[in-house]
Formats: sequence, C-alpha cells, structure tokens
Amino acid sequence: MSNPVRVGVAGLGRMGRLHAYNLAERIRRAELVRVVDAELQIAQEVADELRTDASSSFEDLVEDPTIDAVVLVTPTVLHVPMIVAAAAAGKHIFCEKPLGLDIAEAERALTASRSSGVKLQIGFHRRFDPNWKVARTHIETGELGHVMLFRTSLRDKGPPTDQFLSGPLRFLAETSIHDFDTARWMIGEVEEISVFGNAISEEVKRAGDVETAVIVLRFESGALGVIDNSRSARYGYECNTEVLGSRATVRVGNNRRNDVEWLHDGRAVRFLVDDYIGRWPHAYLAEMDDFVSAVADERSVSVTGEDGLAALMLAKAADLSLRAKRQVRVGHRFERGSVFYEIIE
Amino acid sequence: MSNPVRVGVAGLGRMGRLHAYNLAERIRRAELVRVVDAELQIAQEVADELRTDASSSFEDLVEDPTIDAVVLVTPTVLHVPMIVAAAAAGKHIFCEKPLGLDIAEAERALTASRSSGVKLQIGFHRRFDPNWKVARTHIETGELGHVMLFRTSLRDKGPPTDQFLSGPLRFLAETSIHDFDTARWMIGEVEEISVFGNAISEEVKRAGDVETAVIVLRFESGALGVIDNSRSARYGYECNTEVLGSRATVRVGNNRRNDVEWLHDGRAVRFLVDDYIGRWPHAYLAEMDDFVSAVADERSVSVTGEDGLAALMLAKAADLSLRAKRQVRVGHRFERGSVFYEIIE
Amino acid sequence: MSNPVRVGVAGLGRMGRLHAYNLAERIRRAELVRVVDAELQIAQEVADELRTDASSSFEDLVEDPTIDAVVLVTPTVLHVPMIVAAAAAGKHIFCEKPLGLDIAEAERALTASRSSGVKLQIGFHRRFDPNWKVARTHIETGELGHVMLFRTSLRDKGPPTDQFLSGPLRFLAETSIHDFDTARWMIGEVEEISVFGNAISEEVKRAGDVETAVIVLRFESGALGVIDNSRSARYGYECNTEVLGSRATVRVGNNRRNDVEWLHDGRAVRFLVDDYIGRWPHAYLAEMDDFVSAVADERSVSVTGEDGLAALMLAKAADLSLRAKRQVRVGHRFERGSVFYEIIE
Amino acid sequence: MSNPVRVGVAGLGRMGRLHAYNLAERIRRAELVRVVDAELQIAQEVADELRTDASSSFEDLVEDPTIDAVVLVTPTVLHVPMIVAAAAAGKHIFCEKPLGLDIAEAERALTASRSSGVKLQIGFHRRFDPNWKVARTHIETGELGHVMLFRTSLRDKGPPTDQFLSGPLRFLAETSIHDFDTARWMIGEVEEISVFGNAISEEVKRAGDVETAVIVLRFESGALGVIDNSRSARYGYECNTEVLGSRATVRVGNNRRNDVEWLHDGRAVRFLVDDYIGRWPHAYLAEMDDFVSAVADERSVSVTGEDGLAALMLAKAADLSLRAKRQVRVGHRFERGSVFYEIIE
Repeated sequence: MSNPVRVGVAGLGRMGRLHAYNLAERIRRAELVRVVDAELQIAQEVADELRTDASSSFEDLVEDPTIDAVVLVTPTVLHVPMIVAAAAAGKHIFCEKPLGLDIAEAERALTASRSSGVKLQIGFHRRFDPNWKVARTHIETGELGHVMLFRTSLRDKGPPTDQFLSGPLRFLAETSIHDFDTARWMIGEVEEISVFGNAISEEVKRAGDVETAVIVLRFESGALGVIDNSRSARYGYECNTEVLGSRATVRVGNNRRNDVEWLHDGRAVRFLVDDYIGRWPHAYLAEMDDFVSAVADERSVSVTGEDGLAALMLAKAADLSLRAKRQVRVGHRFERGSVFYEIIE
Repeated sequence: MSNPVRVGVAGLGRMGRLHAYNLAERIRRAELVRVVDAELQIAQEVADELRTDASSSFEDLVEDPTIDAVVLVTPTVLHVPMIVAAAAAGKHIFCEKPLGLDIAEAERALTASRSSGVKLQIGFHRRFDPNWKVARTHIETGELGHVMLFRTSLRDKGPPTDQFLSGPLRFLAETSIHDFDTARWMIGEVEEISVFGNAISEEVKRAGDVETAVIVLRFESGALGVIDNSRSARYGYECNTEVLGSRATVRVGNNRRNDVEWLHDGRAVRFLVDDYIGRWPHAYLAEMDDFVSAVADERSVSVTGEDGLAALMLAKAADLSLRAKRQVRVGHRFERGSVFYEIIE
Repeated sequence: MSNPVRVGVAGLGRMGRLHAYNLAERIRRAELVRVVDAELQIAQEVADELRTDASSSFEDLVEDPTIDAVVLVTPTVLHVPMIVAAAAAGKHIFCEKPLGLDIAEAERALTASRSSGVKLQIGFHRRFDPNWKVARTHIETGELGHVMLFRTSLRDKGPPTDQFLSGPLRFLAETSIHDFDTARWMIGEVEEISVFGNAISEEVKRAGDVETAVIVLRFESGALGVIDNSRSARYGYECNTEVLGSRATVRVGNNRRNDVEWLHDGRAVRFLVDDYIGRWPHAYLAEMDDFVSAVADERSVSVTGEDGLAALMLAKAADLSLRAKRQVRVGHRFERGSVFYEIIE
Repeated sequence: MSNPVRVGVAGLGRMGRLHAYNLAERIRRAELVRVVDAELQIAQEVADELRTDASSSFEDLVEDPTIDAVVLVTPTVLHVPMIVAAAAAGKHIFCEKPLGLDIAEAERALTASRSSGVKLQIGFHRRFDPNWKVARTHIETGELGHVMLFRTSLRDKGPPTDQFLSGPLRFLAETSIHDFDTARWMIGEVEEISVFGNAISEEVKRAGDVETAVIVLRFESGALGVIDNSRSARYGYECNTEVLGSRATVRVGNNRRNDVEWLHDGRAVRFLVDDYIGRWPHAYLAEMDDFVSAVADERSVSVTGEDGLAALMLAKAADLSLRAKRQVRVGHRFERGSVFYEIIE
C-alpha cells in the first residue's frame, strides 16, 4: 500500500469539521496531519477528537514539509491568498467554493496553482451525489435526447443574518454558484444570463440585498435553464433538479433525510433536513475521497480551478444582470482544455 | 330518453345523505322521489335541500307504486326485513353492506329478491374505484402472472364508541367484509381463513371486542392473502392493496385527499382523510350510477346479493377462527352462476 | 325545484364533447338542448348519444328563444363573433380560453356582454381544482406569510403539429394563459414580465415558433413568479405549482391519473396522463356546474370576461418580451370592480 | 490513537467482500490483516485489491496471534465450528446470521464464546439503518403510544435456485430471521407464532419448499405482528416496516436506490434495487464500524449471540407452525441479562 496522503485542514466551521472528520475516519488513503483554526481552542478540540495536531496558524500547514495537501474551508476572502501560499509551498489544494468574489484575484490563484504544478480542486460536491450522477448519465448516453429545459431549485432555510447581507453578489457567488456549476456540468456552456431578485424582510431590503433569485440561462446548445434560489425558505433546506429532453425527462427529487413517515392527527409528516450538512454528507465524503485519490494516484482532479473560475464568472454576470435589469451575454474560449468565460455585453 | 328510474332512499346518516345527494344531483337517469328517516325532521331537512319528499315511514317507499327502486342505508338489523318487504312490493334494491349478521336471515333476503325477480345490489364500493379496477385488470390480463400474495390494509380512525362494541363479529362483518369482497373479486375464492385480534384500550377489552385484526386467507388458487384492519388507527383513515405476482406486482396507494404538500418548520405534511366518506366519494357515485343503469337497462347488477352472502360467510368463518384460535376451512359450490360458501371445519 | 338552465354547446371537439356530456349527464340543474358542430354528422352522433338535438349552425342556438345559455368550444377565431351574437340574443355565455388573440376584438366581446347584461364566464378550469383551491386558501388565510416565489410547470405532450405552429403568441395565449390566470388568482396583479423561449425540432424552428418557454413575473406585491411551459414534453402531460412564503410553502403535485404502482423488472412505474382531458375531468365538471349555478341563481360568475382579458393582455406582453428580448412592464387600473391591464413599456 | 483492531475475514462471497472492503477502506480503527476463502484464487484477488494477505485456510486466522477479531461470512453450516475455534483462540467474532440451523449447535457456539470471554456479534444489520432507528426511537419515547400492530414486508427478487431449496426452515432461518430480530428489537418479546406458506413454481413445490410466507406474531405486550416474505418477488428487492400505535403510526418506506425519476412514454419510472447489497450498504458499514468500536473500546456488542439464538428459536417455532398447521406458543426466560426462548406447544 502506498503511503497515505498527508492532509491539513484550515478552517473549522461545521463544514471544515466535517471534512476533517472524513479525512481522519473515513478515507483510508488520507492521514489528517493537522487542523488549523484562527481560534486555537477550537482547533485543539477538533484535534483531540480526531487524534491529530492543532494550530492557529495557516503557516503551520504550508511550512510543514511532510504535508502533501491542504483543505481550505476558510472565509471566502482568504481563499486566494491561501491558495497562492499553498501553491508556492507545493501543496495540493482542495478549496471550498467560491474561489473568491473578485475575478482578477481568482485568476491569480489559478495562475499560482498552475505554475507550481499543484492540483486545485473546488468544492462543487453536487457532482458527487449519486442522484445527479445518474441524471447526468441519462443525458450523456443520449437517452434523454436534446435538452430543452434545465430546471433546478435550491432553498436555504435562512433567513440570512446580518453577517451575510452584503449585496446580491455574495448570494450569487456563494449559493447560486452551485447551480451554475451543475448547469455547466450537466448541460454545457452558457451564452446568456438573466436574473430577477426580490426581498421581503425589512433587514434584507435595507441592506439592498435579495432573498429570492430567479435566474434564466440560455445555453449554447439552445437549451433554456431556470434556477430558483431562496435564502429564506424557512421550512427547511431543499435541492432538486429536472432536465426536460426531447425523448425523456429526468428528475432528481428532494431526497429527504430519511424515508420515514410519521402519521399523526390527520397528517402524514416527512421530516426535512435543515441545511447542506444534513443533505449531502455522502457527497462531501465522495468529493474528498476523490481529491485524495487524485493526489495519491497523480491524476487530474475532477473539478478544476477553471471550473471554479467559470462558475464565478457566471455569478458576476448574474450580478450585472440583476443590477442592470437586462439580459447579459457571456462568451467563452477554450485554452489548454479549460473553458474561460467573459462578459460580452 | 327513457323515463328516469324513480328511487327512494331509507336511512339518512352521512352515507344515506351522500347516496341521496348523488341520486338527486349527479345521476341523470335517476329521480329521487322520497327520502325516509325514522326522524322525520332529518328526512324533511334532506328533502328540502334536495327538493324531494320526506317521510318517516319505510312503508311510504314500499307502497308507492311509482317508485322503481329503494336504497337501504339503515342499521344492519333492518336490512333483511326491508329487503323482504321491498322485494314483495317489486322494488329493486340497493343495500349497504352487510346483508345482516345472521346467515339464515341473509339467505331469506336472497330468496325473497330472487323469487320476486327484483335486482339486489350490495354496497361494495371498492369495486368501483378506478385504482382497484386498474389493479384488477393487470391481474385479469395475465400481465401479473400467478398471484402469490394479496395484501391489504384498512384503517378506521376510531376508536370505536360503546355503540359499536358488541363483539368481533360486528367488526368483521361491517369493516373487514370490504376486504373479503375485494379479495374474492380480485383473486378468487377462499379455502381457509385464520384470524388474530387484539385490543389495547380498556373499553374494548372489557367488551370482549377487538381493535386490530390480522386475517390470513388461503385462496383456492394457492395464493395467500393477508388483511390487516384497525378500527382505532387514530391518525386517519387509510386503505391500500398490493398484489404480488409471479411476473409483476401491483400496488394501490393510500390515495390521499389531495396532492398538496405543506412545508413548514422542518416538516413536509400531507393531509389525510378522516373516514370512508372522504376517501371514496367517486366510488359511491359510480356504484349508484351503475345500479341505476342496471335498473334502467334491465341488466344484471355488478355486485349481487350472493356476493354479499359470500362475504358474510367469510366474516362468520373469521369470527369462528378468532374464537376457536384455529384455521377454519371453508368450501363453496356454484349454483345458478353464484357461489355459496359453507364452513367445513 | 326551479326550471333547469337550458344550454346549447357549440364546437364538438374532445373538450366540447366533455362539456356536453357533463351538461347532459352530470349537472342536474342544466338541460342540454342542442349541440352544434360545423360537421353535422359529428353533431348528430353526439346528440344521439346524449339524447338531445343536433345542428350544424350556431344560429340555431342564438335564435332559439328557449335557450338560456351557450357554451363556446369553437376555434379561438370564432370566440368574439359568437360572444357578440349570443350577447345580442340575450344568452349567457361560457367561453373557452382565450377570448381571442386580439385585444381590441376581445374588448368588443366584453362590451357586448356587458351592455346586454348577460353573464360571460371564461374556461380557466384550474381555479376549480380542489388542490389549487386548498393551496390558495393557505395563502389567503395568511398561514403562508408573504409570498416570495410562485413557481409553476405546465407540460403538454406535443410535439405541436403544423396546424399549431403560427408564432409564439398562440402558444402564450392558448397554453401559458392558464398560468397567467393562476398567477393572478393565487398571488395578485403583475407588474413586469420577461419571456425566454426556444425550439429544438426543425419544424418549430422553421415556423419561427417556440417549444419551451420560461416566463418570469414580478408581482405588484414584490413576489417573483416563474412559469415553465413545454408544448413538446413527450413523456406526458403534467402541471404542478409551488408557492414559497415567508412562513410556509405549499406545493401542488402532478396528481397522476391514479395511485397505482406497477412493479416489474427492476422498475416501479406510475402511469401518466396524456393531456388536459385526462388530468382535469373533475375541474371541467366543477366549472360548468358553477356556471350553470350562476345562471340559475342569478349571481355573478366566478371567472369573468375581464379575467379573460387580463390574462390575454399578459400573453400579449409576454409575446412582446419574447420578441424584443427585454422585460416588459405592465400597469393596471380598476374599473367597476374589474382589473384592466395595459403595456407600459 | 489506540492501535487499530486487527481483523480477518473468512468467506468471500459478495457479502464477505463488502465486509472486507469496509474494514480495509472505510473503518479507520480497523486493519484488515488477512482474507480467507476456500478458493485461494478468490482470496488472492480480494487481497490484492485491498492490499492485504490471502489464505485458503481458516486456521491461518485463528492461529495468527496478531489477529484480534474474525468476521465469518461463510456458509451457515460452518458458523458454529468456526465460532468455537475462534473463541478457543481468543478472537472476537462477528458472525453473519443465522448462527446455524440447529438450536443445540447454536447454544454450543454461545457457550464457547461466553466461556472464552470473547465478543460475539450477529449480522442483524437492519438495527443500524437510520430509518429503522428513527422509527424505533418514536416507539421508545412513547410518542407512538401502545403498539397495536407491527407490519413488515421483505421481498427477495429470486426465484430461489436449486441450491437454496431445502425446506422452509432454511428460508425462515436465513431470510425471515431478519424480521424476527427486527420485531424483537422494535416491539419486544413474542408469545405466539403462526406461519402460512405457499409455492407457485413447480421446482419449489417439488422440493416441498415455500416461496411466500405470511407470519403472524403475538407479542407479550398484546401487540400483533405480521410479516410477509417472498423469495420470488421478481420485480426487485424491497423491505418496509410499519408500526401502528395508539397515538401515532410510523412507516419506513422502501427507500429506493436513488431519488431519480425517469419520465418516458407515459410512464414515471423509479429504479429498484436488486438485492440486499444494493439496499443496505450504509447499514453493513455501520454494523461493522460498531463491532470494531466494541472491540477497540472493550464494550459490549450491540447485537449479541443471544439475540442470534432468540431469532433462530423463532425461526424453529415458525417452521413447526408451518408444518403442524397451527399456532405455536413460545416462552422465554431471562438469564444474565439475555433472553432465552423455548417452544411451549
């Protein structure tokens, strides 16, 4: 058996802790060497539980010559500088979405990883969910025929707290970005994007932000796409997708937490998940397993930094459409096997 | 257009009122001539609403020479005498299940209707539900192959009130009887029956009655059947059926009141029906429409008095099995195209 | 009992025959006096089956002084002239959607019915479906909170035949118009509309028509709406609706033809309906029953000619948005209790 | 971090390979030391894939002093001798169900493990499925009230091959035994058991075996239970459970392979799993993880050898009921915290 991939995790919010747990307990080919959080106490608690080391300094990951890879689950603003530092130190990188909120910055991260020859994988976990994989296979085999419509809903429980109210770009780049990636991955490249948003609660209105977004895509293939996102669905967290084809249609359901029905007082109740952690534990494990395998087997990652940049560009175009109240056309070119988007008008 | 079938309804509980409404408003070939209830005030209210005549005396139906048919929705104990009287007066008869609780009495009713040449239809409405009809068609066409298992659940909300606590026979003959008829109609004749019952609530225990019954059938064809009934399901009313065949399986779902999902506070809620009235309005209409057509077109009824007697015999055998704690074998013979059951041992 | 409402039906395609059947057999307060079709043989067949009279001339309805009301199920282009003629003769009118394809013409129909004092009801049957009624009630009671998003899908099996390829307006005015009415009825008045369409099949492309449409609405209340329509879904006919509120969310499902599951060869199969006739028989009956009651009881109709005009205006605005590739703003004013839309820009 | 638990797996059919994979790749606290199969080539293939050692001799596990625990996935007839040998060598044991087909033999295995002080866990994986755990919790908290009815279905795709046709006991002890354990675990101890079986296919009839079984249980608490099992369901593999209580009812659904719906040609299709391997991968992982933790943490196992013996006794009583065509009463006593069943009459 080859040596395990030695990994450090930076950022120990709920998502970071889940990645750390999977690396420590569920992925045989990985060894969790160290966990880092700005708050040392948190890092120490996680380290104790997972029987690994703790630190409050990201440098302790970058400068450790025994570490092969880092997993970045830090605030978005730290993604690019951490990628640049890790790449310079020759560490492979798994980075949560989005790459950042600024295109030039994100490009800098890509350049850094590319020139250092390290792998960079972005956390678009939905590509690793078996339901979406099955649906995509139905498209790829041609069974579905020509895609006419891609429809997807993503609902966060919310409502957003003050901390998350900083204009629609953040919502589009942090939440809708999953749908942009899913759209590209399942259907293909996008030509035009139109966004409509609203806010109901006073706090969100005051902040000039949106709670609900409807995003219409026109794909290069002629297919239409429609995404609806809510960050205040209140009832729970849900995600579903439907692809209408000229031969057949495929639908991925909300896939609730369990298949238990509770019958009481004239009601049949199904219990919903609260958030993405409850909805996708298997996909978070699968994406990390895949990243570790890519490092161990010295193969390409399945979700590239360029995929992260493409989705971010769509979020930017979406933000422009929302502000300018018009359709925004985007173009793309291929370079070295990767797609690069630009806003045309 | 032929003259409408002139009908009188006796017994104006909820079920009787529904039949009266359907005859008055929804079945073009019927004319509701008179409604009868022991309480004249109730009869008058219903008559006013449906623009027909009222009476507190069943004789007013039997003696009215302009009436073609009577619909009996009276207490079970009155079924046989009313059938005998109506048959003597040459009226066609639709009678709610069960024919009675006594076999000899029930046979008397059949003899009366047969010798008078009047039609007698029993209220096994499930035969008129489109879902069960589709399922039965799958069996009849042979698509399902040989039937290996028939499984059905019937759940009343309950719990039973004192008035309904009078020993298991009544439960078996009033509730399970629908399943006995469905079993015969879908699968065929029965050879052996075994019944298991229990009671949880103190009132039911004291009355020596049962709340839950599990009934195992062995069909002549070799198929097994299993019925579970509860008269105290509390959460609501439900009925579903499944037939497992050697080629395929068919399943009729609970078919809830509506296809609306209410998402709130971490729960996805479907609302259930309260009772049979909420569950089968379409089937009650269809069976009455069919009865009226049988009279108008002078053809045989779809559910005969003999079907009513067969189901009652199975209820009797079930009661014996429950009391004697053993399997009960039943036999049957055919006479004039109808089946007649007897308890063998 | 008051005299029945005497009704004539014009146009005996599948929908016309269903309305005629319901009037003849299922609606006690109606009497079907005559059926009319341009092809006399068709009219005669239907008349024979329903035991009524036949004619190939619409004048035979208008000029018959014993007729109270007419039901128009004729081609769209005939709606306005027939309404005008029927109104002049003092007949109440039930007219299938759309009123027409031309606003000025449609206004002429409204003026005619208003000045003659006859009732005019438009065939927006979804308002009579119990599922949608339940959903709307959840909104009206305030249980759902503020509406954030209205989402609805309508899928015709298609693909459209040559006869139906005549530009997107027809699709928007014949199909999407149901969603425009549902949107207004459930959520309220619309301020802005944006439409995106595509075509995959060569025939549809050549005709300059669309197969799929995504329509985004902005309501006066601030709510967003998104409608997706396909006229070539191939797999079957479906319609579902979801309303996301600040307190709860309600979802009306596809409510398939039956609740039967067929399990065979590794698959659990539910059978779908083919078209609107299979999907909404109960709603078609309920709307006609309601129209007959409105005439009999001399009360207002539930879906007015003005509702028909409002939905048609939204279809016009939708068509403009699609052609001009931009958001179209609409305004509305109230007159005599009815809403009147206009395109602002 | 404590040393990993060193495990050997014996028997490399599909189930054995899955356990070996989980031990090698998914359970951090375990180390897969060696895999054994009577066919050395199979053992070698699995060992190569999982980077461990191979052997064709069970002695190589028992005699290896570095091995802490063995996992027995061998034919039923080998379970007892292997348990006895492993216990004698001081190895902890995870054994697939059933313990054996002979009570005295099974008792010998329990005595051996108990006197050697080694842990013995039986492979009743359903206890580790999150859906069944949730359902059981609803019962334990009292939310469900008194249990009135336990209903469960287990369907193997089958049909059984010659190799598996050896009389009903084997079916009851290999398949229904899961339901006996689930019944005890969710509801409590059993007092009476009645079994009904049939066979449709000629091969099964000739072998004197059954294809379908209906099993009725009466629990000590007064609750009734009904199990239906088919080893020839053909359409696929399914398992579901329902518990009807005096306050509420809980239902665990069939929990299909995925939440994808394929809409084509008038059908909405869900794809089914083929067998238990497709249905329960998470539960097989969880039970093995739990066993490894019990060894590592030196705590009791969650499913004991006594649980295995109790379920086997119920299978024996079931077999007697089927052959004698009568209800069979069973009694039980507690010793050292475990339950021991006996057949009373």
